[in-house]
Amino acid sequence: MDAADETVEHEVLTANQALYDAFEARDLAAMRALWVGDGDVLCTHPGWPTLHGAGPVLASWETLLSNDQHLQFIVTNARATVVGDAGWVTCDENVLGGGGGGTVAALNLFRRRSDGTWQVVGHHGSPIMT
Amino acid sequence: MDAADETVEHEVLTANQALYDAFEARDLAAMRALWVGDGDVLCTHPGWPTLHGAGPVLASWETLLSNDQHLQFIVTNARATVVGDAGWVTCDENVLGGGGGGTVAALNLFRRRSDGTWQVVGHHGSPIMT
Repeated sequence: MDAADETVEHEVLTANQALYDAFEARDLAAMRALWVGDGDVLCTHPGWPTLHGAGPVLASWETLLSNDQHLQFIVTNARATVVGDAGWVTCDENVLGGGGGGTVAALNLFRRRSDGTWQVVGHHGSPIMT
Repeated sequence: MDAADETVEHEVLTANQALYDAFEARDLAAMRALWVGDGDVLCTHPGWPTLHGAGPVLASWETLLSNDQHLQFIVTNARATVVGDAGWVTCDENVLGGGGGGTVAALNLFRRRSDGTWQVVGHHGSPIMT
């Protein structure tokens, strides 16, 4: 891997971390800004059917972020792959709070905009059974 | 969407269906041929931690395909997105057999090779709770 590859993968990992920072801070405005605002986005929360489109996806985040329980996300094993203007990250979401805890395996998808920034176009999380 | 977009998305959807055909037929050779053979692949089976690398991923498929139970996969709601040489498909895996059944929400990742064919680089499946 050359330096340019490392830089772009770091950019995608930074966007990935921002997703969890917004979740932990229950910051809906930040969450909205991270996601691509058109119809071509998808989101599968643990146990949920897959949601398509910015409307349903952002509405689901609004519901989750309006929860009174404070959740803390410790993200581990984050790995990025970039293919042109697309990228994805796998990571483990180690969730603390909410009367319990657990680890969610996540796959997050990103697209690079014309201004060079990376936005989220997909999220799929599923609980790791132990 | 223009005709070229429809063609390339159809190619990715065909590769996606081939994944389930190989699973249903318990055809390990076909499954191996579908996946990119290098280290940059990932797979999260329902409830599993994410596996990385062709070795662990293909070993997991060998275990699943060597199961004696015949499973039937009816794939619904398949939707493809293509960004350059990367693509992904969301679909529902309606699984019949194995003493039960259920629906798994899946997100599958693909890369286009230099010969124009699409290969699988990622799979994430999680059971939809009803």
